[in-house]
Amino acid sequence: VVEGWSFLDTVESNFRPLVVIELAKGTKEETIEWFTKRIVDKRANGGAQLLIKPLVMENGVENIYLVGASHLRLLLGAETVGLVKECSDNSMRTFTYSSRKTFKDFADDNHNFLTMAECQYIIKHELENLRAKNEKMIPGYPQAKLYPGKSIVRRLLTSGILVQIFPLHDREELKKLRHSWYGRVKVGYQPLDDIRCYFGETIALYFGFLEYFTFALIPMAVIGIPYYVFAWEDYDKYVMFATFNLLWSTVILEVWKRICAILTYRWGTLLMKRQFEEPRPGFHGVLGINPVTGREEPVYSSFKRQLRIYLVSLPFVCLCLYFSLYVMMIYFDLEQWALDYHKENESNFSSLMLYVPSIIYAVVIEIMNRIYRYAAEFLTSWENHRLESSYQNHLVLKVLVFNFLNCFASLFYIAFVLFDMKLLRQSLATLLITSQILNQFAESLLPYWLQKRYNRRMKKRMCSQKTDRDLSIAEQVNMEKEMGTYLGTFDDYLELFLQFGYVSLFSCVYPLAAVFAVLNNITEIYSDALKMCRVYKRPFAEPTANIGVWQLAFETMSVISVVTNCVLIGMSPQVDALFPDSKMDLVLTVALVEHLLLAIKFIMAFIIPDKPRDIQMKLAKLEFESLEALKQQVRAFQMQLHFLLIHH
Amino acid sequence: VVEGWSFLDTVESNFRPLVVIELAKGTKEETIEWFTKRIVDKRANGGAQLLIKPLVMENGVENIYLVGASHLRLLLGAETVGLVKECSDNSMRTFTYSSRKTFKDFADDNHNFLTMAECQYIIKHELENLRAKNEKMIPGYPQAKLYPGKSIVRRLLTSGILVQIFPLHDREELKKLRHSWYGRVKVGYQPLDDIRCYFGETIALYFGFLEYFTFALIPMAVIGIPYYVFAWEDYDKYVMFATFNLLWSTVILEVWKRICAILTYRWGTLLMKRQFEEPRPGFHGVLGINPVTGREEPVYSSFKRQLRIYLVSLPFVCLCLYFSLYVMMIYFDLEQWALDYHKENESNFSSLMLYVPSIIYAVVIEIMNRIYRYAAEFLTSWENHRLESSYQNHLVLKVLVFNFLNCFASLFYIAFVLFDMKLLRQSLATLLITSQILNQFAESLLPYWLQKRYNRRMKKRMCSQKTDRDLSIAEQVNMEKEMGTYLGTFDDYLELFLQFGYVSLFSCVYPLAAVFAVLNNITEIYSDALKMCRVYKRPFAEPTANIGVWQLAFETMSVISVVTNCVLIGMSPQVDALFPDSKMDLVLTVALVEHLLLAIKFIMAFIIPDKPRDIQMKLAKLEFESLEALKQQVRAFQMQLHFLLIHH
Repeated sequence: VVEGWSFLDTVESNFRPLVVIELAKGTKEETIEWFTKRIVDKRANGGAQLLIKPLVMENGVENIYLVGASHLRLLLGAETVGLVKECSDNSMRTFTYSSRKTFKDFADDNHNFLTMAECQYIIKHELENLRAKNEKMIPGYPQAKLYPGKSIVRRLLTSGILVQIFPLHDREELKKLRHSWYGRVKVGYQPLDDIRCYFGETIALYFGFLEYFTFALIPMAVIGIPYYVFAWEDYDKYVMFATFNLLWSTVILEVWKRICAILTYRWGTLLMKRQFEEPRPGFHGVLGINPVTGREEPVYSSFKRQLRIYLVSLPFVCLCLYFSLYVMMIYFDLEQWALDYHKENESNFSSLMLYVPSIIYAVVIEIMNRIYRYAAEFLTSWENHRLESSYQNHLVLKVLVFNFLNCFASLFYIAFVLFDMKLLRQSLATLLITSQILNQFAESLLPYWLQKRYNRRMKKRMCSQKTDRDLSIAEQVNMEKEMGTYLGTFDDYLELFLQFGYVSLFSCVYPLAAVFAVLNNITEIYSDALKMCRVYKRPFAEPTANIGVWQLAFETMSVISVVTNCVLIGMSPQVDALFPDSKMDLVLTVALVEHLLLAIKFIMAFIIPDKPRDIQMKLAKLEFESLEALKQQVRAFQMQLHFLLIHH
Repeated sequence: VVEGWSFLDTVESNFRPLVVIELAKGTKEETIEWFTKRIVDKRANGGAQLLIKPLVMENGVENIYLVGASHLRLLLGAETVGLVKECSDNSMRTFTYSSRKTFKDFADDNHNFLTMAECQYIIKHELENLRAKNEKMIPGYPQAKLYPGKSIVRRLLTSGILVQIFPLHDREELKKLRHSWYGRVKVGYQPLDDIRCYFGETIALYFGFLEYFTFALIPMAVIGIPYYVFAWEDYDKYVMFATFNLLWSTVILEVWKRICAILTYRWGTLLMKRQFEEPRPGFHGVLGINPVTGREEPVYSSFKRQLRIYLVSLPFVCLCLYFSLYVMMIYFDLEQWALDYHKENESNFSSLMLYVPSIIYAVVIEIMNRIYRYAAEFLTSWENHRLESSYQNHLVLKVLVFNFLNCFASLFYIAFVLFDMKLLRQSLATLLITSQILNQFAESLLPYWLQKRYNRRMKKRMCSQKTDRDLSIAEQVNMEKEMGTYLGTFDDYLELFLQFGYVSLFSCVYPLAAVFAVLNNITEIYSDALKMCRVYKRPFAEPTANIGVWQLAFETMSVISVVTNCVLIGMSPQVDALFPDSKMDLVLTVALVEHLLLAIKFIMAFIIPDKPRDIQMKLAKLEFESLEALKQQVRAFQMQLHFLLIHH
């Protein structure tokens, strides 16, 4: 079995495969030769100075390569990417090779100073920054043009020569992580630090948020249960519940910022300097001079992009929104039809039929969301944004607007046009529960089952009954390269965002929503963990300091929920009965309360500091130190100058 | 006349006095000797390495000193404070002495490379950063304690040995500036760049904002005039006016950010790094270890400060607010009394009497604002904030809340409790016009008149009928040291803020407010300019990149004005008549429109970029360059390392 791995003894004995490169089958010899030479070449010659080994498969095809790096190379790479690590005095500092001795756990022979995820991130960074020098094209492929400074790997990817690059799993570590994460049934926190070490900060932060959010929902759920059990319908209790919810949702979002700061400070990403953003892989244009970098690279007129956005994307999104509303109206027709049917033939079957339209609608919503997702991705990519961040912002905006309308329009319609609280409660419950079940199924269980079946087939084909641990590297690579690719945390956050909408927008009508959300999130943690460890290829670690645009999205949702809840409470018959003489007074009171709540919300968001005091102090200390160091440099330089001036 | 200035020939011939230090009369000899020695001492010995000369007055008292610095010292100081200047290639860069040749207009003999305001700022910075070494106290004053690292000048100031430090006027430059600023009657922009060169960025930015704000109000004023002329009372016209106002006020605040970025980029302050903030002069506490700097310095428990804020300041502010409301109720009694009087004896006198309560109230408001201002300053200073920025934030918050209530409470009461639009219009007009007249008088004309009288007396005493230009330095210093001290732009911004409130909060009731605001601001520009050039001592330049907390204050005001205007329009009889059947529909429509307008406002604020595209590009370019430079350094270092590793 080990014949494909024979180079291990011939070359360096400590070569540790970290990243897998899969080239297209039948890639020309000269291309492979040139590419591998560039990867192993010295930095001085413009190479990446990494180690690379071909992996010969059983069938003799040689299109897979393993990439690694020497320990020293990785340390220098850590400095290049600006990694922040903990020092011996427990402060966090940017790692530099010259100051390496001051870092905690550093020893020249300690190869675990950098986590495997960090090593893989460094290798990815170095590969992506492998740039063309004077090559006009990729050798052997004249149509794959290059220009000085173009990232070689990105060009290879876009021209289809490079199929994929992915980091290898560490089966030992993964097993330990799985065990502590979801292997045993226990009540407690997730091992976030271990997750971060294995999967990187972005994914650890998602699981941190998921866990935090679940804990934060528990008070809402606990307070919500008696409303269901005792069938409380008094308006004052609803008012209390809704008011608590609104203030609570503000508090939890503010407190999350603080927890996020604590986590990312510990992980070092809070202090990491933003790297200069390179054009995204899909960006194309005619060669021109970039006014910022002064380099020759593709440029694309911003005016043309604006045209595409406002003349094509915007109308398309509006059309989709209209279509979604149209589908909603069909749903209401169905609902009416089911009601009529139930009235005509009262039976168990007919009362069950009452739920059918909602369920169908929930399924249709999920399908529409997914189809729209592809369209939005296609459109945003066609808009040809230069930077990944700009692409992401436009994509998120498109998807959020549509998903919000698609999921909540029917509820708004029922609440504020039909004024049917009973139907609202029923629809809300059906939508929430159906979408949660569908999501859990489509996201984790289905892929897991498919993966398992595939693995079983693979193993059978290999005619070996070994456990995972005994797999050779060749078999491991073979297995992992066929696994699905995890496309980032977008869908996971989106799911949480919509759930937050269901819980907060109409919380005073259906206090039980929080209970379902909590239950769903507990299983979600397990199924997402399963998905990360079992279903998908290991993703590259991405350093990140916060949950980005999602913080804003959640905050916006909580502002909207203040408005909807105030209106719902104002519409309740109990509150109505309080103002028997004048509906005017009722509406004015509701409006006043709403504005007060919004004001309190904004003041709270303003007053609660985004970072805990001790993190603030640590950051101030670091800033002070760097300013002092700079001052020392300037002073030393000035003294030299003075000395020179005096002695001449 | 020149006898006091006799040292000019004895020492350096190119000594240019920049800053004046006035010590208390009768300061001990040993203190003066020690202080001047520390000022002229070499940097290596912990001195400031500046030049200092005593100024002997006619009466022989020697308590005034002139401070200057050599050209080289100023250039090195410019590097220390992190000044940003324009390079030969028109880009803005942080000045360093070693790269001095690359800067525009730099020549070793060009002493105008740094503006006089910059030189004075540098000297102030160097004086304030003159720190105690091992001195335990100020020599001669055992009660004035020192500890290593304590700013000597700040201790001298707080112990009363140092009376004041102020920069000298440049009478030539000032004359030129006065001429181009307000010397001739012309329509056009202010010479903002010249103002910035003479007074620094903070003051230039205030005048820039004042001018911009005036221009921005002109469309509102122009649209408002026909409402007054033709006595338009149609609701649709009011709705149009108010809607225009609301969107316009959002636009102008967003556009200001862009203009501010353009100005401060040109002046270099947009790129200036924030300096580490030292404790403010008034801060006191017991000696302890500062956890951020690790130095021994006074520390004051944050808990005690919180106690003072919440147990003393907050109740006091609430009491003042209550008192202000109480005064307001007295005003309404007076108003009622005047109405009754007018009804009983209808005469010209009685109809004039109708305006008297408003005028009295406006005067009382101004007086209360000013008294409260002192109380707020005293309280905030007693709260013992460590940093100047924190002190300022607490002061601004206290003052803004009180001023807002004090000025606008009566208008809110009239509008939303009494529903008396006629009275509202009348009150608004009286308050606005009275407060403008009072302000212009108290702020500029009165001090100017006092100053002029004083100058005349001084000149008479000196028995010389010379023009300003012929004044000797001694006479100039003598004159300037008695001038008032300009206490910063706070009051000027506050005045504009309240004016913005009068214009925007009730704009749909009194469209003429914008006209008065424009007229006031045009004279305000002139009277403020007069104040800066003639009445006050020259202030030290303060680099700043924006108008700080005032941006937030103006934005908050424009949000509040959306609410008030929507309610006012909803209350107007014309709109009322549109919904004859149901008042509910009216209120709901108003609420809906209000929320829509607020949503549009926030979306607009989000969409309009804070910096113009070309400034963004320039900033990106600078960032790119500094990252590239860093990368080059790292790469060079890595290559050295590799070389070493290979050859051993």
